[in-house]
Formats: sequence, C-alpha cells, structure tokens
Amino acid sequence: MKFGLFGGARTSMGNQPSDSQQIHEFIDYVLEAEDLGFESVFLVEHHFTGFGQVSASLNLLSYLAGRTRTMRLGTAVMVLPWHNPALLVEQAATVDVVSGGRLDLGIGRGYRYSEFAGFCMDMAEADARYQECLDFIQKAWTSKGRFSHHGTYWNYDNVVIEPAPVQRPHPPLWIGANSDASITKTARAGMNMLVAQNGSPEVVGHKVATFRKAAEEAGRVYDPFSVGVTRAFHLAYTAEERTRQQELRRRFLQHVQDLSLPPSGPIPGNHFQGHGDAEKMRKLTESDALIGPPDELIKRLKVYEAAGVEHMLLIDVGGSLEALRIFGKEILPEFKGKKS
Amino acid sequence: MKFGLFGGARTSMGNQPSDSQQIHEFIDYVLEAEDLGFESVFLVEHHFTGFGQVSASLNLLSYLAGRTRTMRLGTAVMVLPWHNPALLVEQAATVDVVSGGRLDLGIGRGYRYSEFAGFCMDMAEADARYQECLDFIQKAWTSKGRFSHHGTYWNYDNVVIEPAPVQRPHPPLWIGANSDASITKTARAGMNMLVAQNGSPEVVGHKVATFRKAAEEAGRVYDPFSVGVTRAFHLAYTAEERTRQQELRRRFLQHVQDLSLPPSGPIPGNHFQGHGDAEKMRKLTESDALIGPPDELIKRLKVYEAAGVEHMLLIDVGGSLEALRIFGKEILPEFKGKKS
Repeated sequence: MKFGLFGGARTSMGNQPSDSQQIHEFIDYVLEAEDLGFESVFLVEHHFTGFGQVSASLNLLSYLAGRTRTMRLGTAVMVLPWHNPALLVEQAATVDVVSGGRLDLGIGRGYRYSEFAGFCMDMAEADARYQECLDFIQKAWTSKGRFSHHGTYWNYDNVVIEPAPVQRPHPPLWIGANSDASITKTARAGMNMLVAQNGSPEVVGHKVATFRKAAEEAGRVYDPFSVGVTRAFHLAYTAEERTRQQELRRRFLQHVQDLSLPPSGPIPGNHFQGHGDAEKMRKLTESDALIGPPDELIKRLKVYEAAGVEHMLLIDVGGSLEALRIFGKEILPEFKGKKS
Repeated sequence: MKFGLFGGARTSMGNQPSDSQQIHEFIDYVLEAEDLGFESVFLVEHHFTGFGQVSASLNLLSYLAGRTRTMRLGTAVMVLPWHNPALLVEQAATVDVVSGGRLDLGIGRGYRYSEFAGFCMDMAEADARYQECLDFIQKAWTSKGRFSHHGTYWNYDNVVIEPAPVQRPHPPLWIGANSDASITKTARAGMNMLVAQNGSPEVVGHKVATFRKAAEEAGRVYDPFSVGVTRAFHLAYTAEERTRQQELRRRFLQHVQDLSLPPSGPIPGNHFQGHGDAEKMRKLTESDALIGPPDELIKRLKVYEAAGVEHMLLIDVGGSLEALRIFGKEILPEFKGKKS
C-alpha cells in the first residue's frame, strides 16, 4: 500500500494563525512527508471559506514542484465550473512541465452551496459547466494544432493551448465515483478514481474491484495507484484523546456541511450535505475515520489493503508534524517493500 | 542601476524545441541570472501564440518562488480582461505567500487582437473589463472581512479572498504608462511603472522624472526600483552580428505586430500595431534596442542611468546562457555597488 496526503493548508476552527504561516507550515509538512515516504499529495480547491482552505491549488502545486523531487502532485479536486477552461489547461500543463510530469489532475463539479453563491453561479448549472470544461480539456490535450470550441458557457476560436504537458497524451484525470455505473464509466473512460471518505473496507473493496474489472475489460493495464481512497487520520492513544479527535472530526464535517447546504435544504445525492444525520455522523467519525493508536491503525489499514486498496490518501495525518513523524516511523514501515 | 529579466520562455521563430525543454531552459536561465546578480524577473502573459510564450505566468512564478531566494517575481503584465478576478487575486496572493512577499504584480489591458479573438472577447471591452477587475483586486486587498461585488462582467456575493498576501497592504501593482498624464496618475495612485521598450534615454528620463515628481508630491518616498525600463538586449561583436541580431529583433517585432493587428487595421494608440512603419522599426531595432559589444552597451546603459533609470529590465539578455554570463561578468560589475 502506498500513502499520500489529502487536503491542504487550513486553520483549525477557532484557531487563526496568519494565512502565510499556515501555508508555510503545510509546505513543511508536505516536504517532511516526502522524506518519510509519502508518494502523493492531493490538494483540495475551496473558496471564500474564512478558514484558509487552499484556493489557488495549482499555484501551490507549482511551488511544491520546485521543492519536492518524486512526489506525485495532485488536485482533489479542481472544480471545473469555476474556471476558464483555456486558462485551466494552461495552468495544469505548466504544473506538469515544471514538475517533470508529476501532475495528477483530479476534477469535479463542486458541492458547496456557499462557493457557488460566492461566485453568483447557479448550482444547477454545475453539471453542464463541468461537462463543457471537461470536453474542452480533452479537446485541448488531444487536438493536433489549432481548434475552436463553441459551447454554452465558453467560446474559443482557432486556439492552441500551450505549453503541451509532459505526460502523454496528458496528465491522468481523476474523478470521484460512487455507484457501480459511474465507477465503470470512469474506468472505461481511461480516468483514475478518487473514493470518498466514507464506507466500510468491504464497500471500498467492492469499488476497487469494480474499477479494476471495468478497466481490464476496457483493455487498460490496471495500476493500483490509479484508485485513491481517502480517509481522515488522527492519532489517539487514550480513550479521552480518541473522543476528542472524533469531536474535532465531527466539528470539521459539520462546518463543511454548513458551507455546503443551500438555504432550501439538501440537494439529493450530494453526500456532503447529510452529515447532520446522527447515525451517518457517527459512522463518519468512528468507523470511517482512522482514529486510534498506531497498532490499531496498522490493523485497520491492513484490512483495507486486503480489500484491494493500494493507494491510501490520508487527511491531516494527525494534524501535526509530530503525528506525521510517528506515522512515518511506526506505521509506514509495516507497508514498505510490498509489491503494489 | 539594478537589472532584471523581462519576457519568458519562447521558441525562436522557426526553431521549435518541445514546450517542456524551452521552459526548463528558461528556468535554468533565471536561476543563473539570480546567481549573477539580477534582482527581478518579469514574465509576460500570452495565449495561443504557437511559439510557446508563457501563458500561465503565475504558475511559473510559483515554481520559481521555490527555486530562487531573493529575486523579485513579477508579471509584465497579467492581462486582467481574461481573468476571473477572484481566482486571479487568490493566485497572486498565493505567489506572494510562497515567495515570502516577492511578488510584483504588473497588470494591463492586453494589446493583441489574436488573443482577444481566441477568447472570443470584443477588444473594445478591454478597458471596461480591466477597470472592473482592478477595482475588484483593490477591494479584495483592502476590505476588512467579507464584501460583495456586482459589476458589468462579474458578480460575487459575501466573499473573502484567501490567502491574504504577505506584503501589506498588498503586492505592488505595476502598470505601463506613457503620457505625462497617465504617468502622473500612476504615481498618485500608489502604483509602480513599467516603461515601454521604445524611446530615447532623454524621453525615458523625462518619464522617470515625471513619475518621481508626481510620486513625491503625493507623499510617496520615491523608490528607484519602482520604475522598470524595458529594453531588448543582444550581444554583437561584429558589424555582421549586429545586423543579424537587429534582423532577429525586427522579425520578432513583426511577428508580435502580426498577432496584434485587427483585420480592420491598427487601433489608435496601440503602440504594438505600428511596427510596420519603416522608420519606427529602424528606431526599435537600432537606437532603442541594446545591440552591440559589451563596452558599447556599458556606455549606453550609463546614459540611461544618468537619465535617472535605476531598474533596467532586459529582454532575452542575448538569448543564451553564454550571453547572460558575459553580461554578468563584463557588464553588471560596472553597475555594482552603486547606491541606487
């Protein structure tokens, strides 16, 4: 099993260092993670949160390209509806070039009402805007020479998108997929898959197997790195600390829900908007989140590994450099040297 | 006099290495320039050129922030009409944060018809789009807490732009100014000034003096670094080489004009669209461009210095690492240690 980081700089709620300080602490944390053996970092993209989540994700990745050596540099995800497609492709390709081909471009539709409201964009347009931008990205990265695009939201005439990326035909595209149908579609489309932060090892294992089967049926050589499973991760050595960390996780999820919910109530299928349900929240903070002492977490990670998960993206890794180092010293060696 | 680089990666016309190769060669060139004593790099932003000019300038600067130590990282210029203002402010602030406060944000309206045509944007809207974006930038960087913006082209509700930049109140804004009136306005607005690539030392000296006078009258402490004068720079040791370098310069300017001219003919006041005039082109390639052997160029640079120019941005510095090193060894020491 390989490990990556998921998330990005942000303040703890109620604890507000300067934006600069928190970004530089995050950078130090990523550099240390690479030294410890983490093989990827996937940054979120969020706007107007008031608690410093990463906004200009591709700029932070460009910087990290200059400070890291081998780590894959990912987004999870770039929210396509908010971006000028041509500028986005140029920016992504530039990250790929300066990093020597290390970009993993995760893309999505966005799920937080507060962000669409901030951009004065109707959330009902998210699907159509996402699809148009994705069509443009694929056209830009597969067209020979100049092309035009005339869509609902964007128009371009006779353009060539420079620079060309290093990875050919283009950096891997990653998308979140949940149902069997969307997982199969993702695998067939040649994309990689991000698995959401909830679900038992059995459920996750079924998703990995579904992806692998569809990928192989489509003629792809299955790469275990191509499925990233995301889990919150907090070290807790005592029952009290476990409860405290679960509470921190609960508060964060509640905050994300508050940012996501439209005034009119939850949008069906938007899984970030139902955390208020007590049973769901209990699962998210207890059975889904990896919270506990190292020996327990090793056992739980091995259950995921046995279920077919070979690329685990950890949120926060305990939230400190100290916890990261404990992970690197006590947990990661249990998974080193495995063929994956 | 301090020196900076102006421009960015691009292929020579008719000579097409890969995009990745040319960007990495440009990166090596910038890193070497910092070691030699260059104090700034200002990147252009261009799109759809087909010869690899830098498109995602703030991403390349983010990368350079991770590889350089002291150099100021500038844009000359970001073309505001093409950008989502909120995303642009987030990106610029991120460069400022990761670089430890080294961003110099040059901004402009754009001047190439081919780029506006590529974006399917009416060039007649450039001024209004520029002004709206600039208003947003200044609001974002001076508002306490959340704000809204409802303009002609963009709308935002109740947003806070994160991260905050390191430089306070915000990174310096640089704009191109030409007439006495616009120079005075720039100085009074607290902005820095980019001086165009044409004009005799006397003309340029008048502009610097006009800026300085207006800045001091407005209560600013005049910083000589705050006026950047741009000049093409090519080493040429023989008459034949001088002619060849002038021809290279002429071809480049002609190409830029071809990209800039609307089918309907030149737009009044757009100084990138009149190079075809033989006398103007002669001046641009002979008296304005710094083309010659080191001893001649030292003398010419000292004329600019005597006219008040203390921040000289050089285009290409001869187009090779070798020429850059000759500049560092033979020319730059003539200006070292001067109080500026």
